[in-house]
Amino acid sequence: MSGLEILGFAAAILTTVCWLPQALRTIRTKDTKSLSLVTQGAFTLGVGLWLVYGVLAGNAPIIFANAITFVLVALILALKLRYG
Amino acid sequence: MSGLEILGFAAAILTTVCWLPQALRTIRTKDTKSLSLVTQGAFTLGVGLWLVYGVLAGNAPIIFANAITFVLVALILALKLRYG
Repeated sequence: MSGLEILGFAAAILTTVCWLPQALRTIRTKDTKSLSLVTQGAFTLGVGLWLVYGVLAGNAPIIFANAITFVLVALILALKLRYG
Repeated sequence: MSGLEILGFAAAILTTVCWLPQALRTIRTKDTKSLSLVTQGAFTLGVGLWLVYGVLAGNAPIIFANAITFVLVALILALKLRYG
């Protein structure tokens, strides 16, 4: 694997798993006051579009990273909609 | 432009500009309590790595999208560090 590929994997892993602490914190505290609903909604939609793009383009890394991210950010969006 | 390219552009634009409402909300309210510092720090670092990846790979769309995203998410991180 080239240095460039390792860099891309590191970037993809970070921007995917980083949503886990926010999801766990929000589940624990039920506090979503500082979160922007517009940001959370648009980001979830955007990640969903990346997932559809990955499926249509047959690109496994894009599918994999965005599927995990989508589950986490959709959960945070659902908590924002529930707790306001 | 193909339908697949339009889908990719829509996804990239959404996952980039979506951070503007969160940045503006945080500037206005000074409220960062619900935001996870670990998430915000790891996401900012990950977007920064995507930007470096784009520069080294000579990929203009990756550079463009991640440069804008980086400015917005680094600003939100700075506000989180300041307001706690």
